[in-house]
Amino acid sequence: MKQGLKLAMEATNSNPTSTAAAELLCGVNAKALLDSVDAFLFDCDGVIWKGDKLIDGTPETLEMLRSMGKKLIFVTNNSTKSRFQYANKFRSLGLSVSQDEIFSSSYAAAMYLKVNQFPLEKKVYVIGGEGIVQELQLSGFTALGGPEDGEKRAQWKSNCLFEHDKDVGAVVVGLDPDINYYKLQYGTICIRENPGCLFIATNRDSVGHMTDLQEWPGAGCMVGAICGSTERKPIVVGKPSTFMMDFLLQKFNLSTYRMCMVGDRLDTDILFGQNAGCKTLLVLSGVTTKSILDDPSNKIQPDYYTSKVSDFLNFLGE
Amino acid sequence: MKQGLKLAMEATNSNPTSTAAAELLCGVNAKALLDSVDAFLFDCDGVIWKGDKLIDGTPETLEMLRSMGKKLIFVTNNSTKSRFQYANKFRSLGLSVSQDEIFSSSYAAAMYLKVNQFPLEKKVYVIGGEGIVQELQLSGFTALGGPEDGEKRAQWKSNCLFEHDKDVGAVVVGLDPDINYYKLQYGTICIRENPGCLFIATNRDSVGHMTDLQEWPGAGCMVGAICGSTERKPIVVGKPSTFMMDFLLQKFNLSTYRMCMVGDRLDTDILFGQNAGCKTLLVLSGVTTKSILDDPSNKIQPDYYTSKVSDFLNFLGE
Repeated sequence: MKQGLKLAMEATNSNPTSTAAAELLCGVNAKALLDSVDAFLFDCDGVIWKGDKLIDGTPETLEMLRSMGKKLIFVTNNSTKSRFQYANKFRSLGLSVSQDEIFSSSYAAAMYLKVNQFPLEKKVYVIGGEGIVQELQLSGFTALGGPEDGEKRAQWKSNCLFEHDKDVGAVVVGLDPDINYYKLQYGTICIRENPGCLFIATNRDSVGHMTDLQEWPGAGCMVGAICGSTERKPIVVGKPSTFMMDFLLQKFNLSTYRMCMVGDRLDTDILFGQNAGCKTLLVLSGVTTKSILDDPSNKIQPDYYTSKVSDFLNFLGE
Repeated sequence: MKQGLKLAMEATNSNPTSTAAAELLCGVNAKALLDSVDAFLFDCDGVIWKGDKLIDGTPETLEMLRSMGKKLIFVTNNSTKSRFQYANKFRSLGLSVSQDEIFSSSYAAAMYLKVNQFPLEKKVYVIGGEGIVQELQLSGFTALGGPEDGEKRAQWKSNCLFEHDKDVGAVVVGLDPDINYYKLQYGTICIRENPGCLFIATNRDSVGHMTDLQEWPGAGCMVGAICGSTERKPIVVGKPSTFMMDFLLQKFNLSTYRMCMVGDRLDTDILFGQNAGCKTLLVLSGVTTKSILDDPSNKIQPDYYTSKVSDFLNFLGE
């Protein structure tokens, strides 16, 4: 257990950044990029879709890449859905993507416990959505909390002892639209009082596109709350930690230098790709604008940038 | 406005710690301590009471100190009550303490805005209890949020724009037993989108004695959540920041070296006293045990320690 844990902790702290300015994608370098990689890793929100709306030209682009023999993998920090639920979302948007091609941070949390041989007789308390609970259960773990505790309230009165399950050996924290004091209290008490209890964060994204129009607090908000009450640092399993990357490299027997990470966020997607040694492509269809990329305070430069994934269609038609 | 703000920020970062081991309070040094100070600053929870239960011997001790001409000031990080509500709590426990002797972090938040000339036409969004709302209103500010937003929910659907008040110029975050996604979202959007919006934390205590029996998440939990979603550091007005101390020194015309801070927490109370240059006395009637004090990882040593405030009665009777 210790080695896997150590790896994920280190991955979260490593921060290799590229200092060369990103190249604008064009016909010439797009073709060279395609020739140099076997697999594309795509972030979903801001790359494939925005909220519930597909980004134009995506289905045709993915089909073209598949027809060229490229492996496609979808890596999302959003933990509210399980892989099964994500496959349904892809299908509802007219995209043919199988569950095995999807790596969500909810799945990563379950896989982290699995590869680190978390004892099956122990339990996992969840601050987050149904996606985490489902993935934990699919891996044979007992999940407590999650949506079930959405309406519970702590009793603030004298001589009140908050009872918690002493068998909880891990608390998994992700984005939780039904966050409340009860869940924060339950997770905090498990981490502070149960010896050796792990504190796992699906990711630490500060905000996300919960709607098409605006950025709202992301998992970084709930994770920050538990950091504040426990004075502990989490083990992060989602981007930019390379835990998920190490896991899928092993699963698919891929080489990182023959992969390209495509994402809309510098501090998660691009850093995740760089941490792992992948080529990186920033799309401006999500949260990052050209002026953010060019700002002197930004230290993360992808290899390439372009407006949206479907630009590949134009470049390869030239 | 800038200078006051700078002062409070610096105060939060300053961290002078004493390395000499704490002296056990006894008849000799207790008398010397009493002779050397004009005022005692008391933390409340874990010092005067624990939850809703008075700690034995406290009323007699406070009366004795008053009869010796000592000024008594009560400084609490708990922001859920206003000074008016605190005065009622003291009264209900049989202690005669006036509102003017009480400095709560709810009052400190209002005073921070006042001394920094926060414009009265601007508004303040509150993540926290009624105490903060009351103190802001007593100082003439317009408070939004707080308990009123306890039952509100964000709509998670496409094309949903979360409307927020563009006149909010400060978000005050304290302990909030009714924390929810709506409030976190409101505060986050104000800080991220309203130009110059201040992020003020009443305090960052990780946990507190919400009941007699157990420690539950404190304001540090809610403050951590907003740090996570905004990627901003708060201006802390409660202990161990010296904002409150600077304010009351000016108000009462006191000298810090003629004061003694009495508290049960090393990282807030004792550090607060040391930051300000006061003498410090740790009581073991709250969250800190002798083994925590003696642990090599603890770098904060008070001048003196004793089991409870009423030990003064014994020492002065010797």
